Amino acid sequence: MMKVYLSGEIHTDWRDQITAAAADLDVTFAGPVTDHAASDDCGVAIMGAEDQKFWHDHKGAKLNAIRTRKGIESADIVVVRFGDQYKQWNAAFDAGMAAALGKSLIVMHGPDHQHALKEVDAAALAVVETPKQVVEILTYVLNGTLPD
Amino acid sequence: MMKVYLSGEIHTDWRDQITAAAADLDVTFAGPVTDHAASDDCGVAIMGAEDQKFWHDHKGAKLNAIRTRKGIESADIVVVRFGDQYKQWNAAFDAGMAAALGKSLIVMHGPDHQHALKEVDAAALAVVETPKQVVEILTYVLNGTLPD
Amino acid sequence: MMKVYLSGEIHTDWRDQITAAAADLDVTFAGPVTDHAASDDCGVAIMGAEDQKFWHDHKGAKLNAIRTRKGIESADIVVVRFGDQYKQWNAAFDAGMAAALGKSLIVMHGPDHQHALKEVDAAALAVVETPKQVVEILTYVLNGTLPD
Amino acid sequence: MMKVYLSGEIHTDWRDQITAAAADLDVTFAGPVTDHAASDDCGVAIMGAEDQKFWHDHKGAKLNAIRTRKGIESADIVVVRFGDQYKQWNAAFDAGMAAALGKSLIVMHGPDHQHALKEVDAAALAVVETPKQVVEILTYVLNGTLPD
Amino acid sequence: MMKVYLSGEIHTDWRDQITAAAADLDVTFAGPVTDHAASDDCGVAIMGAEDQKFWHDHKGAKLNAIRTRKGIESADIVVVRFGDQYKQWNAAFDAGMAAALGKSLIVMHGPDHQHALKEVDAAALAVVETPKQVVEILTYVLNGTLPD
Amino acid sequence: MMKVYLSGEIHTDWRDQITAAAADLDVTFAGPVTDHAASDDCGVAIMGAEDQKFWHDHKGAKLNAIRTRKGIESADIVVVRFGDQYKQWNAAFDAGMAAALGKSLIVMHGPDHQHALKEVDAAALAVVETPKQVVEILTYVLNGTLPD
Amino acid sequence: MMKVYLSGEIHTDWRDQITAAAADLDVTFAGPVTDHAASDDCGVAIMGAEDQKFWHDHKGAKLNAIRTRKGIESADIVVVRFGDQYKQWNAAFDAGMAAALGKSLIVMHGPDHQHALKEVDAAALAVVETPKQVVEILTYVLNGTLPD
Amino acid sequence: MMKVYLSGEIHTDWRDQITAAAADLDVTFAGPVTDHAASDDCGVAIMGAEDQKFWHDHKGAKLNAIRTRKGIESADIVVVRFGDQYKQWNAAFDAGMAAALGKSLIVMHGPDHQHALKEVDAAALAVVETPKQVVEILTYVLNGTLPD
Repeated sequence: MMKVYLSGEIHTDWRDQITAAAADLDVTFAGPVTDHAASDDCGVAIMGAEDQKFWHDHKGAKLNAIRTRKGIESADIVVVRFGDQYKQWNAAFDAGMAAALGKSLIVMHGPDHQHALKEVDAAALAVVETPKQVVEILTYVLNGTLPD
Repeated sequence: MMKVYLSGEIHTDWRDQITAAAADLDVTFAGPVTDHAASDDCGVAIMGAEDQKFWHDHKGAKLNAIRTRKGIESADIVVVRFGDQYKQWNAAFDAGMAAALGKSLIVMHGPDHQHALKEVDAAALAVVETPKQVVEILTYVLNGTLPD
Repeated sequence: MMKVYLSGEIHTDWRDQITAAAADLDVTFAGPVTDHAASDDCGVAIMGAEDQKFWHDHKGAKLNAIRTRKGIESADIVVVRFGDQYKQWNAAFDAGMAAALGKSLIVMHGPDHQHALKEVDAAALAVVETPKQVVEILTYVLNGTLPD
Repeated sequence: MMKVYLSGEIHTDWRDQITAAAADLDVTFAGPVTDHAASDDCGVAIMGAEDQKFWHDHKGAKLNAIRTRKGIESADIVVVRFGDQYKQWNAAFDAGMAAALGKSLIVMHGPDHQHALKEVDAAALAVVETPKQVVEILTYVLNGTLPD
Repeated sequence: MMKVYLSGEIHTDWRDQITAAAADLDVTFAGPVTDHAASDDCGVAIMGAEDQKFWHDHKGAKLNAIRTRKGIESADIVVVRFGDQYKQWNAAFDAGMAAALGKSLIVMHGPDHQHALKEVDAAALAVVETPKQVVEILTYVLNGTLPD
Repeated sequence: MMKVYLSGEIHTDWRDQITAAAADLDVTFAGPVTDHAASDDCGVAIMGAEDQKFWHDHKGAKLNAIRTRKGIESADIVVVRFGDQYKQWNAAFDAGMAAALGKSLIVMHGPDHQHALKEVDAAALAVVETPKQVVEILTYVLNGTLPD
Repeated sequence: MMKVYLSGEIHTDWRDQITAAAADLDVTFAGPVTDHAASDDCGVAIMGAEDQKFWHDHKGAKLNAIRTRKGIESADIVVVRFGDQYKQWNAAFDAGMAAALGKSLIVMHGPDHQHALKEVDAAALAVVETPKQVVEILTYVLNGTLPD
Repeated sequence: MMKVYLSGEIHTDWRDQITAAAADLDVTFAGPVTDHAASDDCGVAIMGAEDQKFWHDHKGAKLNAIRTRKGIESADIVVVRFGDQYKQWNAAFDAGMAAALGKSLIVMHGPDHQHALKEVDAAALAVVETPKQVVEILTYVLNGTLPD
């Protein structure tokens, strides 16, 4: 059985695509909270409002870290997807953690980001563009079978 | 004695500012190769040309990783600066490695990047805006004295 | 599934409040022996009486350490509560162990102890005042849902 | 050569007593910043004022953690002194970190605190009352000679 | 659930006593092969005879190490019993491994061996004389209840 | 329960022999993909063709590393078989990883390779020639019984 | 300063070439004993003769492991050279250890061995053919300068 | 440079023999306090008398552990000598610690103890009978030269 953590971009349904297509594999998936509003406001919603944006964000980011840490530390494979928008520094940060912890890293991004992600790609065991490729990798790694 | 690794943005002289201002402290500094062209082309210059940009970058990024790994793993403190330009995913990647390895992390960035860097900041022991503040932190941590 | 260790104060029913309110979550809880008399006398009850209070306490504290170590080392999250009474150095000691082992630390205490606990709070991913907030955090971290 | 970190109480001259009496031993000492005001205000002095006491303290405690972490992680022996006053939870927190990191722990306190410190003492390799005893231990451990 | 490794003396039924008395506890037990002849000859029986006693023993001791390593590394608690006979250096060796790996160590021996075992006892969280006391410790550590 | 990783030669049915003969033991087996063609081409089949053989192989070897790493890191015992043909450097590489990770290493090879494998054998807890011997070792280690 | 371990082939002067050409770099080199006869016979020369070749080799290989282990564990960079002759399983074994310990791995070999070494190359940060390239890498990594 | 810890028997001058004969090697030696009386009484001499022999010994054994731990953890090679007398369980305990910490272990003992020490010998990289052999091993490991 493989444990896979799906890190990064939260605005498209790539996690659902992978999870659905991998339904027959001996894999469990984890990932961050993908409700953007909840993720941003969780700290103040539970522990009280802050006047400054920095501390508002700080409290939330730390709560999210409880989930992220557990997910990455428990994983055999960490998949990190970089989408087309936003800075996505948290995705690169997760990739750095995964690399330092010796996890098998798979990076997913389009060709436009190739040069900017070269250090992240260099630490990966696979660089792909689509959720379908991630599922093909998981299928091969677990069952030894290749796509037709 | 403290070992400090200066990660991130390589287009301004912030490393020189810190190193000069910290000349009297019991500190040694390390950092990446800051010659942008050499950093991009080191792999093919030494190990032979590649037709594809991906492998050109791959060979270079791996050579640079030899230096980065040594620098971060040896450090007591990792300072990561995010500048105004570029994606800077390698900076966030270094920050993730530093956090996973239990290094004391100091993040430097302007107020514009505050929200996008909230996960990185949440892993840091200090968030600052200027090289001068980094030197003040090092001075305090080593000597116990505060700026006037 | 998350493993949570509930450390610290043993004279109120805060553990029961959390356990009851978290009954529907995918969480397991552990904690110290909360029978104060048994906890104090376990060493001599099993291994023989001591003339000196120091060794009486020493034998008991070491037996309790078998349970504490296992609980903290197995945990994903360590919650440490500081109550209104007593020195509670064992609670701060547990927090230090949890921090050094890289556990996600949640500290619970009233506003009176804020300054005295600043070093412990600085190592935490969340600082709360009530058992209800701990359950809200666990609910968010596991299910991604916030309190209404 | 032994590296010794002197943690805990900062209002008496016990560190100076140990350092002076151990001048001929092959030992280096480290410890926290002992200027109480600087220690409390270092965060805001360098990184800007905060309206709330919690964040004022938070910024300072994190800066101090840079020094404490380095000191404890580098040490062979961690000496933790509990004085007569204050909560001193940071001292117990340091002791917990030292224990979790496998450091040799020496605890110093008066007889009044014996019962309350039993968990901390149980993790120690020596429990003493005076700086003189610490120096006698260091002398024996390094040179094999006992006090007359 | 606790995992307990029962190391040391193999000529009396102390393991059976503990296992039987602990039948209702949430504990699993492991231990070495207790068939003395099989334990001595396993190497040559499977991998071929040796002319020299040293290599005969060497092959056997290494096979036994496969089981011992797994048992100790998986354990939460290592109980090491020293009987009245033989050198039992393997028992002390197991205790050293357990201590270095941070396992909770319980040492069992009669009063005659007290001085000779002082270094081993000093690394233990409990020193007992009988299997009954081991079961009482496990009962207390798991359930918080003391013997009547 | 023991987890066993079967590394090395993939052109004979030695894995099947072991798995079948060990059907009654409390053991789980893992190993590399043994479909030679799939193993060689997996990288380009999933992630796109390469002009150069080096990168063709590189992509495949990295995918296979996801499975190998997981298998070796999860194992209690790593069995490495060297056959009569090929360089088999990957087998020796796996043995080096297993040794560095503290796994119990069993090496299987014929007498012709004895001198060339002396460094690998020196790191092993058992050196055997046949699958039958591996099963006898597993039987002894788990059940304490020797072959008749 | 970088520590480099030069592993593998001992029949050509590649180590001398690297050491000489790197004389001005801030690097220290270590490597195995390169006197083939001494390396083969060291065990029996010091600890007494053996009738069987297996144990003769075993004693020698274990002595050599004392040096190898120290060299690899202390290194920042491990260079492994595969020559044209012999099985060289010890070289691949060293590479596996280096990879598992997180060392920066540089592999040196001719194009003939490319396919057979693909798993080893996949774990490396650089794959080169000549000692000159190793020195160019060290020069770049330490000084940031590329060959003309 | 190699760091060597000389553990075990303290009633003959074997440490002096090794240290003198190895004077020209790049080695530093450490070891326990060899003044038997001081070693037994150090705890009570510094921290106050005890009525019971168990606690008298306990206090001393823990002080000695400060030195032993540092010596073994810092060592590259741990030499453990078993003499003709006494139980020497502390020697076997040190050997177990050294093995668990991945140190290169050399065991020294006469032929009479061969069978009883088989588990300890099985964890060693060399088993010798004399101090001269230890020096020959150190000379070979450091300089690559064998005795004439």
